[in-house]
Amino acid sequence: MLGVGPRVKTIRLASCYRASVTPPNAERRNQHSRRAILRAAYELALELGPAKVTVEAIASRAGVGKQTIYRWWPSKGAVFLDVLEEQVGTVSEMPDTGDVVADLKTQMTAVAELFNADFARFYKALIAEAQGDAAVAQGLAEQLAERAEGPRRDRLSKAQQQGQIRADIDLAAAVEMLYAPLYYRLLVGAAAPDSAQVSAVLDVALHGLAPSR
Amino acid sequence: MLGVGPRVKTIRLASCYRASVTPPNAERRNQHSRRAILRAAYELALELGPAKVTVEAIASRAGVGKQTIYRWWPSKGAVFLDVLEEQVGTVSEMPDTGDVVADLKTQMTAVAELFNADFARFYKALIAEAQGDAAVAQGLAEQLAERAEGPRRDRLSKAQQQGQIRADIDLAAAVEMLYAPLYYRLLVGAAAPDSAQVSAVLDVALHGLAPSR
Repeated sequence: MLGVGPRVKTIRLASCYRASVTPPNAERRNQHSRRAILRAAYELALELGPAKVTVEAIASRAGVGKQTIYRWWPSKGAVFLDVLEEQVGTVSEMPDTGDVVADLKTQMTAVAELFNADFARFYKALIAEAQGDAAVAQGLAEQLAERAEGPRRDRLSKAQQQGQIRADIDLAAAVEMLYAPLYYRLLVGAAAPDSAQVSAVLDVALHGLAPSR
Repeated sequence: MLGVGPRVKTIRLASCYRASVTPPNAERRNQHSRRAILRAAYELALELGPAKVTVEAIASRAGVGKQTIYRWWPSKGAVFLDVLEEQVGTVSEMPDTGDVVADLKTQMTAVAELFNADFARFYKALIAEAQGDAAVAQGLAEQLAERAEGPRRDRLSKAQQQGQIRADIDLAAAVEMLYAPLYYRLLVGAAAPDSAQVSAVLDVALHGLAPSR
C-alpha cells in the first residue's frame, strides 16, 4: 500500500478485498485518488489550519467526490492522521547500524529536522486539534505508540541484549526521556529543536545525572 | 501583589505608580476586581475553550467594564497567561531540602498531579491556542523559562556545587529531559502523567542509559 492507504487496521481488510476483486487499472486509479486527497488535505491544513478544513474542500481540491473520501476514511481527523503518516514517511524508521548511540543520534536529529520543516506547522496544528478532540487525540497517541515509540523501544531492547544499554532500565521511560524534549520545544519551548539539543540530551541521558562513583 | 496582578513586567511599574497615588480602599477594590477577572476567565476557558472566550464575556461574568480589563491587560491572551500563573501557584516553586533527588521527585510529582486536575484542560487548551497564536506562544515560553525552567536549573546547579549532580552536564538539557516527558503525556501521549512515570524517568535520568563500567 506504500503508506498512502487509510489507517493501518483498515488497510489490511481493504487490501484483501481489493486484491481479489479490483482490476489493476481501478487499483491504480484508487491510488491516484488517495494521493490527491492526502496532498489536498495537507495543503489545505497548512493554508487554513486543520480546524477550518472541511471534507468538501478536500474533495474539491483533490478533484474527487465527497463520497470517495468517506469510502476510505470515517472522518476528516482520520484523513489528517494518514497525512501525518505520509509526511513523516521514513523518518519514523529506526536505523540499526549496530551502534545504538549513533542510531539514536541519527534518528533524533532527523526528528528535530522534521520539527523545523513546513511539516512542523501541520503537526503543531494537528496536536492543537487533539487537545479538544478525543478521537484525534486517540488516533495520534495510537500512531505515536505504533510507529514511533514501539520501534524505538525495540531498538533499545536489542541494544540491551547486546550490552550497549544498561539491562535494568525501563525502556518506555528511556524513550520518553530521549524524545519528549523534541516535542517540548516543538510545542511550548522558546527555541526550536535542533542537533545541539539532541547532542546535549543524549549526553545527559547516556551518562546520567548522578556523579560517577 | 500576591501573584494576581498583570504580567510581571507590568506589575513593577503599576505598583510603583499605585503605591504613590492610590488610596488603600481603591487598592483593595482593584485586587478584588483582578481576582474576579482571573476567576471568570478561568471558568469561561474551562466551559468554552480559550479560543471562544471574549473579553466582553470575561468582563460580564466578573461584573466589571471591558475597559477595566484593557487597563490591566493588553489582550485576552495576556489575561490567560496570568490565569495560568495563578492556577499553577506554588507548584512551580522548587523545594530545597538539601537532597536534590528527593526534591526533584516532590516537584515532578506535583507537576504530574497538576497535569491531571481540572487545570490540565485549561492548560492543554491554552497550549493549543499557542500553536496558532505567536503572542500566546511567546508569553507561554517566557513564563515557562522564568517560572519553571529557571528555578529548576538553579536547583540542579546548587546540587552540582554540592557534588550531588555530575559537574559536567548541560543543566538546560537535564531539565528538559526530566520535565518534557510530563508535557509529552499531557499533550500527545496515550497515558496521563503520574508518579510511576516520574519514578521511572528519574531512575533512568539519574543513572543513565550506558551500562556501568
